Amino acid sequence: MAKSRISPRHDDLSERYKDVRALTLALTDPLSDADATVQSMPDASPAKWHLAHTTWFFETFVLRDHVEGYRSFDPGYAFLFNSYYEAEGARHARPMRGVLTRPTLDEVRAYRAHVDAALLTALPMMLPDAQLLVLLGLHHEQQHQELLLTDLTHLFSLNPLEPAVFAGKSAAPVDLPGKLHWIEGREGLVEIGHNGQSDFAFDCEGPRHKALLHPHALAHRPITNGEWMAFIEDGGYRNAALWLSDGWSWVQADGVEAPLYWKQGEQGWTQFGLDGRQPVNPAASVTHISLYEADAYASWAGARLPTEAEWESAAQNVPASDGNLLGEAGAVQPRPAGDGSKLCQMFGDVWEWTGSAYRPYPGFKAAGGAVGEYNGKFMSGQFVLRGGSCATPRGHVRASYRNFFYPHQRWQFTGLRLAKDL
Amino acid sequence: MAKSRISPRHDDLSERYKDVRALTLALTDPLSDADATVQSMPDASPAKWHLAHTTWFFETFVLRDHVEGYRSFDPGYAFLFNSYYEAEGARHARPMRGVLTRPTLDEVRAYRAHVDAALLTALPMMLPDAQLLVLLGLHHEQQHQELLLTDLTHLFSLNPLEPAVFAGKSAAPVDLPGKLHWIEGREGLVEIGHNGQSDFAFDCEGPRHKALLHPHALAHRPITNGEWMAFIEDGGYRNAALWLSDGWSWVQADGVEAPLYWKQGEQGWTQFGLDGRQPVNPAASVTHISLYEADAYASWAGARLPTEAEWESAAQNVPASDGNLLGEAGAVQPRPAGDGSKLCQMFGDVWEWTGSAYRPYPGFKAAGGAVGEYNGKFMSGQFVLRGGSCATPRGHVRASYRNFFYPHQRWQFTGLRLAKDL
Amino acid sequence: MAKSRISPRHDDLSERYKDVRALTLALTDPLSDADATVQSMPDASPAKWHLAHTTWFFETFVLRDHVEGYRSFDPGYAFLFNSYYEAEGARHARPMRGVLTRPTLDEVRAYRAHVDAALLTALPMMLPDAQLLVLLGLHHEQQHQELLLTDLTHLFSLNPLEPAVFAGKSAAPVDLPGKLHWIEGREGLVEIGHNGQSDFAFDCEGPRHKALLHPHALAHRPITNGEWMAFIEDGGYRNAALWLSDGWSWVQADGVEAPLYWKQGEQGWTQFGLDGRQPVNPAASVTHISLYEADAYASWAGARLPTEAEWESAAQNVPASDGNLLGEAGAVQPRPAGDGSKLCQMFGDVWEWTGSAYRPYPGFKAAGGAVGEYNGKFMSGQFVLRGGSCATPRGHVRASYRNFFYPHQRWQFTGLRLAKDL
Amino acid sequence: MAKSRISPRHDDLSERYKDVRALTLALTDPLSDADATVQSMPDASPAKWHLAHTTWFFETFVLRDHVEGYRSFDPGYAFLFNSYYEAEGARHARPMRGVLTRPTLDEVRAYRAHVDAALLTALPMMLPDAQLLVLLGLHHEQQHQELLLTDLTHLFSLNPLEPAVFAGKSAAPVDLPGKLHWIEGREGLVEIGHNGQSDFAFDCEGPRHKALLHPHALAHRPITNGEWMAFIEDGGYRNAALWLSDGWSWVQADGVEAPLYWKQGEQGWTQFGLDGRQPVNPAASVTHISLYEADAYASWAGARLPTEAEWESAAQNVPASDGNLLGEAGAVQPRPAGDGSKLCQMFGDVWEWTGSAYRPYPGFKAAGGAVGEYNGKFMSGQFVLRGGSCATPRGHVRASYRNFFYPHQRWQFTGLRLAKDL
Repeated sequence: MAKSRISPRHDDLSERYKDVRALTLALTDPLSDADATVQSMPDASPAKWHLAHTTWFFETFVLRDHVEGYRSFDPGYAFLFNSYYEAEGARHARPMRGVLTRPTLDEVRAYRAHVDAALLTALPMMLPDAQLLVLLGLHHEQQHQELLLTDLTHLFSLNPLEPAVFAGKSAAPVDLPGKLHWIEGREGLVEIGHNGQSDFAFDCEGPRHKALLHPHALAHRPITNGEWMAFIEDGGYRNAALWLSDGWSWVQADGVEAPLYWKQGEQGWTQFGLDGRQPVNPAASVTHISLYEADAYASWAGARLPTEAEWESAAQNVPASDGNLLGEAGAVQPRPAGDGSKLCQMFGDVWEWTGSAYRPYPGFKAAGGAVGEYNGKFMSGQFVLRGGSCATPRGHVRASYRNFFYPHQRWQFTGLRLAKDL
Repeated sequence: MAKSRISPRHDDLSERYKDVRALTLALTDPLSDADATVQSMPDASPAKWHLAHTTWFFETFVLRDHVEGYRSFDPGYAFLFNSYYEAEGARHARPMRGVLTRPTLDEVRAYRAHVDAALLTALPMMLPDAQLLVLLGLHHEQQHQELLLTDLTHLFSLNPLEPAVFAGKSAAPVDLPGKLHWIEGREGLVEIGHNGQSDFAFDCEGPRHKALLHPHALAHRPITNGEWMAFIEDGGYRNAALWLSDGWSWVQADGVEAPLYWKQGEQGWTQFGLDGRQPVNPAASVTHISLYEADAYASWAGARLPTEAEWESAAQNVPASDGNLLGEAGAVQPRPAGDGSKLCQMFGDVWEWTGSAYRPYPGFKAAGGAVGEYNGKFMSGQFVLRGGSCATPRGHVRASYRNFFYPHQRWQFTGLRLAKDL
Repeated sequence: MAKSRISPRHDDLSERYKDVRALTLALTDPLSDADATVQSMPDASPAKWHLAHTTWFFETFVLRDHVEGYRSFDPGYAFLFNSYYEAEGARHARPMRGVLTRPTLDEVRAYRAHVDAALLTALPMMLPDAQLLVLLGLHHEQQHQELLLTDLTHLFSLNPLEPAVFAGKSAAPVDLPGKLHWIEGREGLVEIGHNGQSDFAFDCEGPRHKALLHPHALAHRPITNGEWMAFIEDGGYRNAALWLSDGWSWVQADGVEAPLYWKQGEQGWTQFGLDGRQPVNPAASVTHISLYEADAYASWAGARLPTEAEWESAAQNVPASDGNLLGEAGAVQPRPAGDGSKLCQMFGDVWEWTGSAYRPYPGFKAAGGAVGEYNGKFMSGQFVLRGGSCATPRGHVRASYRNFFYPHQRWQFTGLRLAKDL
Repeated sequence: MAKSRISPRHDDLSERYKDVRALTLALTDPLSDADATVQSMPDASPAKWHLAHTTWFFETFVLRDHVEGYRSFDPGYAFLFNSYYEAEGARHARPMRGVLTRPTLDEVRAYRAHVDAALLTALPMMLPDAQLLVLLGLHHEQQHQELLLTDLTHLFSLNPLEPAVFAGKSAAPVDLPGKLHWIEGREGLVEIGHNGQSDFAFDCEGPRHKALLHPHALAHRPITNGEWMAFIEDGGYRNAALWLSDGWSWVQADGVEAPLYWKQGEQGWTQFGLDGRQPVNPAASVTHISLYEADAYASWAGARLPTEAEWESAAQNVPASDGNLLGEAGAVQPRPAGDGSKLCQMFGDVWEWTGSAYRPYPGFKAAGGAVGEYNGKFMSGQFVLRGGSCATPRGHVRASYRNFFYPHQRWQFTGLRLAKDL
């Protein structure tokens, strides 16, 4: 459940609602009904499902619960488009989302229009509690915008035709970035966690609390594709000593030899993305790696992953808006690292794996009710990632933002920044 | 590989080609791109794949091999739409057919049109060998028409909305059929297998050979839904003594309690089909049962399944065209049994499980080349079914026709007719 | 259930009982408690379990049901040592047989002694029905003697120490056998199935019935290891065209490249057996092959597998006692083929895969009661093997004897004899 | 790898060596060869394997590497009895440990005697580095003593006979303990991690470092069986809202309804242990629960699990020797909680799940070489447990000791102590 101490202004909220909802639609613009329906793996969801589920969230927690007289678009949708809210009752099994060829993409768009109209009409008269749920719903939808892009990438990667869904942006050739620099971090007691000053945060970002940092430094930028190729060439994927035990089992069981979507051909390494298959850019941040790979690379480099407190402390003075984030529909990729020596690329480009398990902050309490299932119940077995990626909607990410995935998952835009003890 | 001793006439073949190809398209008429793309289980294929694969068959074995100057529609399609012909090289993995959101349904229809135009142009000048491959391709396509209907039924059955894809034909209420009668079969040496007199047969239907029949009788009609309900009510699904050992394991592992698509509600049993969920008609032939269920029923009834030789011998004088077979696009269901006492419903309505394992006839030799992979390589682990179903295209089935499935499979229109020793 | 029309004489039966029971014990003589306890795969059972289960059979179906006043050795054993008799109630799960470290091997031997004493005391007064159950129990125990040897071989094959459990018999070097000869079989109507003249047969061997044979010939001897090496060298395991579809999937999923227990080293092929790892003898019959491998070899050789009727018809005039069968405890192996040109090695050496699915004979009816579960319920998915092997106890096998396994199983002494159409 | 700043005295080390090695043998005293050989699940190892592997550790890292002229007992054992040391080369697959019926239990005991003799002879002349490896080996062996007991419990729990391996100690009836009291913990900066003052610690226990504690309290004792029954009766296992998401999936997939080894009968709850099946003692600490269960209980109780820093800080002034730890061979169980209100049972009885993921301490570096694989490579996916159990050898556990298991594992003596924020 979100917490927010500052009520958003009505008109602002309406505009934000329209913007966010429009971007989601734009992201699905190049999709056929079929593209939007198929589920490529249990971890991923169909685009149509993302469109409908985010709408179900508004319909259920805002319109049904807070807007008198609202008539649901279709009573059967609650069963189809609930994701994991146990308190909301039975729901369609996650791995079966891809069999829902009906409702069609057009019907789901009509569902969105129906809910949008009702919500925008009701918004001016809504009580603050309901408005906060709208705000939560928008941040929820932004999360699904990112998932929508990464789920689509996975789907199209399995198609031997490897279609380019969006036109690629031809990147100007750049010089390879210079060497890594180490930026010394704060030491001693710092404050992290959401401070209640911005208009929104997820419950797991708080409470604000003191944390103790030990002497350390962070790399000034994420690891690049070029550096990753050196790891591969040095036999990194074949040297058990570098890997966590679970990671080594995973490498061997799945035959992992490179980041997801990479292939080696006569012309060298290529990677698949929503702009089709393209050469790997050695200057850009490496992405689509698991925590296991990130950790093995850090061992190989004689370093380690940052803790989330180290990362957040360093990020507190960096404007998130500087980052390479998602602004409009299109194919996205991490950009080449600039050739400076200051802390850079903390936001955007790639989610940075930390060495911190995703666990509650001191004093954390999940909110009551169905929306309370939002974050707390996932606090086992996953690691925290920080900083957002090129697929994270602009305005969504903060220094205190905690993303989390299982250590083997890598279909998100995941990368790494090294840290070391001083 | 087909064998045929009689060359089809050119103009007939053209007409048949047009008719078969048109029916396939008509069957997919009510489908959206998404409906046509999704794969509901590894055993089933997407409708779009059926449309494309049957076309690939003509393009590969007829146009590529026998029509000079033919230009393939898209060279990438050979990889995507080969089913299992090892000799034709690598192919897309079967359980992944459902990720092919591209090419679109419209593109696949264009592929069909391209191949149809080329083939109909070339047909008049084709040598007999090539014409026989066209004929084989048409029979192959008819097989896929049936699979297309049963695969779609499976897909839509998983959708909680349970859509009615085709309008249902409201069946006039009928009296329950009378009791089973036993029809004595021939005894001693009979001839079975394709006799080379009709214009077409699959290789596994021959050679024509003598078979020895022991004293026996066949039920005059298949078992009905009403009779099956009595089996359920008598605890048939809970009595291990009735079941083959593998069947009992299957019942327990899958929690099987009724034919596929059946559900019990306040109004009694209903079944799902392409006309949506409908009450089970007690007078109609039971369908969507596994060999295990058919065998357990026979044990319960103190009878057994017929051998394929017994079945074929009895069917030799029955016109297949009498049967309830597929004539036009629409929802199909087995019809109620008539109230006679003569051998009836041998063709159409439901495929009848026999007690015969699918193995080669004496003297069988698979043909050479890729089309030789057609039947022989499936001759382990499967049982023979006879007679065609309400989803089998009219003109496709014969007395000598051998269909085959694994004993646990039941998404086809499968049923049973009892036999007994005399 | 067995059928037998001739009552065995009491004193003969006592002697046979003692002989069979003594051989079982002798087979386990070199085993430690641990050797006798471990289960190496779900298909196999621990030696201790074989010892106890065969005893449970006599205790349950003879002593409990037919000997007044018998006191069971331990009431808990019924749950532990029932194999698959549903009518006898709940039982320990098959894949968990290996956790039964208690009762100990010595306790199980005491159980055997207790039952033996009770049975031998009661035998002279037993009614013929009970005596027939004793006879059935002895044949049942002989089946388990063979399984005991093959299950132990599998267990020890997984131990990197590859222990020699029994001393090996050093085979005198022999010349490679000459070429295969073809022996023409009978044509037309023959009689097969158990004829009721010998003292015992399993229910599935009957009823005696007419079968129709088409013109054919059988190879005069089984295929040898030397011939199998030629198949391997010719790429037999890599040529999809030779294989049944299910077989090709199995070869690829399991990485099969040679018969079970074969390894290739610097000195050529070796095979593991109860006498440890030994060089493969090119003159001996190949063994430990699946039906899929046998069928692929036959395709490669331009031949086919015999039907069970062809095999039985040819075997009817061959004395089973000529065969290389199990006579005393020790390591067993197929012997080298002699250099003749007459039909030989029909019995013993290796079970010969036939091309016939294991299905009921015309008129077959399973007996009632628990022992009626003996054979009939396994009649799906399996193939018939004929003739017994070097691990089949002498006196156990007959021309009409039908053994059966799934097509992928190969831990028995399985081999093949070619057949062809004339 | 262990770190230790204080060299043990030779004679002390010899005595400790003899004591530890003798206890291991005593624990296996009531076992048959079979009991000691079988592996009940991939997570567990056979007793014989524990006996041999702990010996292999001394043979490899001490005798082979540090004692000139040592001749290995059997060169094949290195392959069989290496557990997971990648640097030591290929090894027998973990889930296959149970097929090693050879070497026998007696041979493994002879192996132990051989190594013991060589090591005790060489010990007086050993250099400090080698002596530290001996010390590490003893702590390693103590870990396996605990696993040996819990693995045996699991094995015998699967035997329907439920044997009592050791005589039970009849506990005097005790009053139910009083209510939980809350003991306030330290706040602010504390020091945790091994301080280098005692003679031994595992590498993962250090370095000593500052940690920040937030206001909190710990329950004065662990949760009891009686309290757990109240959780069950209140529907704790059926209320999704109490569970972590992964935990709820686990409960549903495995049908979990109570702690491992519990069964409900007419006389109430019983539990299986090495003294057979006994009534559950409501006054004793609950055990054999997963992290998921511990976390769900804490949610139900409106509390949470302690962090490992909170736990260690509270334990620093508690003598570990007060605990109910393993002193001699026999059946062990958590004892009833006393009726006081002070912090008690911190050591022994049950391992206490903490809410801390098992991750490296600030500044942690794994040691080089094969023994460096000891701890660091397991630092993903597991949770820390603290305090030792009734199966932990006396002298083995410390305030800084970090044990770790996956959140679903519960065959160890695992329990929980509540914590809460102040």
